[in-house]
Amino acid sequence: MGTAALDQSVGAVKAQTMRFDTPLVFRSGAVLDQYELAYETYGALNSDKSNAVLVCHALNASHHVAGWYEGQPDNIGWWDNMIGPGKPLDTNRFFVVGVNNLGGCFGSTGPASINPKTGKPHGSSFPVVTVVDWVEAQARLADRLGIARFAAVMGGSLGAMQALQWTIDHPGRIGSAVVIAAAPKLSAQNIAFNEVARQAITTDPDFRGGDFYQHGVVPRRGLRLARMIGHITYLSDDAMMEKFGRTLSAESIRYHFDVDFEVESYLRYQGDKFAEYFDANTYLLITRALDYFDPAQAAGGDLARALSAARAKFFVASFTSDWRFAPERSREIVKALLDNRADVSYAEIDAPHGHDAFLLDDPRYHALVRAWFDNIHAAL
Amino acid sequence: MGTAALDQSVGAVKAQTMRFDTPLVFRSGAVLDQYELAYETYGALNSDKSNAVLVCHALNASHHVAGWYEGQPDNIGWWDNMIGPGKPLDTNRFFVVGVNNLGGCFGSTGPASINPKTGKPHGSSFPVVTVVDWVEAQARLADRLGIARFAAVMGGSLGAMQALQWTIDHPGRIGSAVVIAAAPKLSAQNIAFNEVARQAITTDPDFRGGDFYQHGVVPRRGLRLARMIGHITYLSDDAMMEKFGRTLSAESIRYHFDVDFEVESYLRYQGDKFAEYFDANTYLLITRALDYFDPAQAAGGDLARALSAARAKFFVASFTSDWRFAPERSREIVKALLDNRADVSYAEIDAPHGHDAFLLDDPRYHALVRAWFDNIHAAL
Repeated sequence: MGTAALDQSVGAVKAQTMRFDTPLVFRSGAVLDQYELAYETYGALNSDKSNAVLVCHALNASHHVAGWYEGQPDNIGWWDNMIGPGKPLDTNRFFVVGVNNLGGCFGSTGPASINPKTGKPHGSSFPVVTVVDWVEAQARLADRLGIARFAAVMGGSLGAMQALQWTIDHPGRIGSAVVIAAAPKLSAQNIAFNEVARQAITTDPDFRGGDFYQHGVVPRRGLRLARMIGHITYLSDDAMMEKFGRTLSAESIRYHFDVDFEVESYLRYQGDKFAEYFDANTYLLITRALDYFDPAQAAGGDLARALSAARAKFFVASFTSDWRFAPERSREIVKALLDNRADVSYAEIDAPHGHDAFLLDDPRYHALVRAWFDNIHAAL
Repeated sequence: MGTAALDQSVGAVKAQTMRFDTPLVFRSGAVLDQYELAYETYGALNSDKSNAVLVCHALNASHHVAGWYEGQPDNIGWWDNMIGPGKPLDTNRFFVVGVNNLGGCFGSTGPASINPKTGKPHGSSFPVVTVVDWVEAQARLADRLGIARFAAVMGGSLGAMQALQWTIDHPGRIGSAVVIAAAPKLSAQNIAFNEVARQAITTDPDFRGGDFYQHGVVPRRGLRLARMIGHITYLSDDAMMEKFGRTLSAESIRYHFDVDFEVESYLRYQGDKFAEYFDANTYLLITRALDYFDPAQAAGGDLARALSAARAKFFVASFTSDWRFAPERSREIVKALLDNRADVSYAEIDAPHGHDAFLLDDPRYHALVRAWFDNIHAAL
């Protein structure tokens, strides 16, 4: 790694854990008496504590947003191209907080954690968690970190839905919402893909009703399929064609059901890797949180009314080739905000990479985020 | 059933079986010494045998194209809205042949059939079959039926690919190719969806390497997932939203991983039903035939050159909301044909139903097919 790259990175980081002993009542009515949240911070909180930015993660990411872990130079944060010294979200100016959501499998209390009441993993008894519950847990973490108000809450995809929920649940505690590649609620097709992924997991004989931990097994087959399905929806048809086309792994087709095309090899590799580290119950929880997210519902389906209490400024961005959460879905959010005469900037970025574009280093996209945070900083 | 409906139907039909004892050499080099083809015919072959139309099936369909079986009034052919007396493909004028493809599971020799050499089902040893092999088997059936030349070969999706292959392999034996909702080859995304479906089947513990028959089990979990994935790709996002939206099965969400949304219930039902009747090995074979279909490959990737020997007239149709084989893919075929100065009509039909539109009773679509066959009939 060259010096320039080092200059641009937050460098070696350490995950921290915050323990909470005040019971959390979930949207479902379930209660967790105690829980822990894993988080990371980069940059320094300024004296009036006005420069904090919360970065929310999507499906399979975590609190490890930027930098790397000591001795693991390849274990780089999932949004490292966006966050660091001199980067669009500049850690020389902002105090950035990443948090692993409740129900996760990277350090926060989740299905694989030991339930103190039983001495066994929560497993199938872990509460079904919603975006509202995550935001509540994040707000409690903010309390403990002494952050009364975030300069911004930022996320892509499911992370962006959390930013949106923040503007509704805590309008006084968020200055700006950065909502990238989101939707105000899932479509039937979105839910359908989630359902197939969940069915792949729950019908894997090794799932054991969600309590596989005690049996020393992991529903790898199901996790692998879930990840393969997910990957197809993250990439555009064009991006897949560009990346793999119909390229063969060998010189010619081999008339078998093993790998012939490179796209098959790629998907299997991604699936295998995912099944090694991701928790099956967490996958169920997170896809369900996506399905259930629908802030307009409580307002009779009126998104503008649902967002009427929001006081944040909004930056909304979508990507032309994203067919998971297409630009039309972001425009629904923008329209509701405009109906409310909210302060909203919207960018529809011409990018070929599909939904994954929000994670990639597109110069126009990054320039817009940079400008947004420059403005926030100027107003601090 | 009213009289009008009876007038419009071919009525009760019987499947027939043709046995072949001349070995078939597959594209892969594998050989099947003997095999049977299940087929149905409707209407009457005219005296000069010029009015025969072959209808090729797609993924999960069969030779049962129109009418119903005696005592099974609900077991209606898959293209019954298209084929019958007075229908777009009018059985008062044409002799229609439907055939279950080799490797199928509805009567033609396939993986579940007994291999006479071993006395056990072919299972995993059944040859990997290609569109070229299917066309060869169909041509042999035509020989035995005394049909030297088809007035038309017609199909949708994978069925249309067979019609296209007919124009290349037997240019003198096909008057007209009716190519609906097709693509000249699969995209990486198309292959990716097939691969996930195959992986769902082959990693089901009950698949037993393809030789599950002897074990008295069926890889139902895998088949079910494969079908669910397929269904999502057959419908447009809009059609799913129209049909299911975010409608709940109960009064409110129940914070669980069982069915909450109607789209989940629909997918599970479709998957369960499919797993009851479809053969897992057939699913692998048919998706692989789709992956491998690429007539241009032998011509260095030049589709026009691949089609240069074709002498048929072409009717090509696509549907605006079909994202599995989008209109662009049909236009590739049309362009290649125009480059060859072939006789081609192309219709891009504004329909909201996605890929499934080719099976539905859209009046504009049916009117075009009717006009096409009227012209064929006028020239007989």
